[in-house]
Amino acid sequence: MILYSYWRSTTSYRVRVALNLKGISYETRPVNLVAHEQNAPDYVKLNPIQGVPTMVTDAGDTLIQSLALLEYLDETQPEPPLLPSDPVPRARVRGAAQTIAMEIHPINNLKVLSYLKDRLDHSQDEAVDWMRHWMTEGFTAFEAQIDSGTPFSFGETPTMADICLAGQMINARRWGLDTSPFPRLVQIDTACRALAAFRDAEPENQPDATPL
Amino acid sequence: MILYSYWRSTTSYRVRVALNLKGISYETRPVNLVAHEQNAPDYVKLNPIQGVPTMVTDAGDTLIQSLALLEYLDETQPEPPLLPSDPVPRARVRGAAQTIAMEIHPINNLKVLSYLKDRLDHSQDEAVDWMRHWMTEGFTAFEAQIDSGTPFSFGETPTMADICLAGQMINARRWGLDTSPFPRLVQIDTACRALAAFRDAEPENQPDATPL
Repeated sequence: MILYSYWRSTTSYRVRVALNLKGISYETRPVNLVAHEQNAPDYVKLNPIQGVPTMVTDAGDTLIQSLALLEYLDETQPEPPLLPSDPVPRARVRGAAQTIAMEIHPINNLKVLSYLKDRLDHSQDEAVDWMRHWMTEGFTAFEAQIDSGTPFSFGETPTMADICLAGQMINARRWGLDTSPFPRLVQIDTACRALAAFRDAEPENQPDATPL
Repeated sequence: MILYSYWRSTTSYRVRVALNLKGISYETRPVNLVAHEQNAPDYVKLNPIQGVPTMVTDAGDTLIQSLALLEYLDETQPEPPLLPSDPVPRARVRGAAQTIAMEIHPINNLKVLSYLKDRLDHSQDEAVDWMRHWMTEGFTAFEAQIDSGTPFSFGETPTMADICLAGQMINARRWGLDTSPFPRLVQIDTACRALAAFRDAEPENQPDATPL
């Protein structure tokens, strides 16, 4: 498996965690988003969204969109599962995962921040306020959907919901969001980061990580 | 089945189309987003994202997030399928659907536009430019992922990708996007709108549609 990935991309992180959880070895091909490598014509042929991640299977199939990749991995390598087996719990986990993946991440994406700063002339402080706003709203909605008193968001083992949450918590720390209003989410994130599959996927543990 | 829906919501539209395609009858409970009914405490208990759609199954399970609902419907009522059966084509359809659902819709959502206009003091013209920008980028990326020469985005029958596309085309028309650079997408949208399942789901055919 080949994964086109950027160390700080939390959508790349989601797929790195899933690959690690399932014990699938992969080769990282770094795409430097800050250097605009995602806009290079050869890369756009692989990923017309001009983003990361992009996964190339051993059979040579090129697949994009992080949540589609998680579903693909769960269908082709079912153990350990990233979703429960029954339709209602599956819908609950997907709904929570999508609360991060639809209500927070796309609005806080690098390209959206560039539009806000470069085209609409907003300051870095205004961009950070924007990011924290959507994180606070999304985390509040996420917390209301999950189980209480379990190690992970839904039960005893990590699911797609935890993978999306842990990725967003990386951004929360990076952008200085006060996470103290969300003790349950901090607790789940801590449980995730205790697992090697999550730790090995963290930005600073990637081959393209750059000292700041 | 009960569907909390707003006539103009294209995420509600996605679920209305899927229910219609699968022949599942449902009761519409309108949630007027403009009147902020999505923020009413009783509704927030059902849908902590404070949006639509929300689906309540016949067994009384409350489920949220439109793409999670499409997956649920496909798992519990498999015919006609909204996804192909093999993992790679499934990932391709999901990737295209998510190109609409992640790269366009969340960034153009009503709550994001409110932030742009009310908190960042942008004009309606600036908001419309913003919307058209993300639609143009997303449609370009969508078009690069789909089949050519088929009635629908992937093959002979509508999938999740077409459902997401047709919903976004409603917004494209509403916000005056020039769709002539996307003849393939216009053609697929026309094929969708020729089907009663799509037509019956259109905003103007909803019980809460309001004359403008």
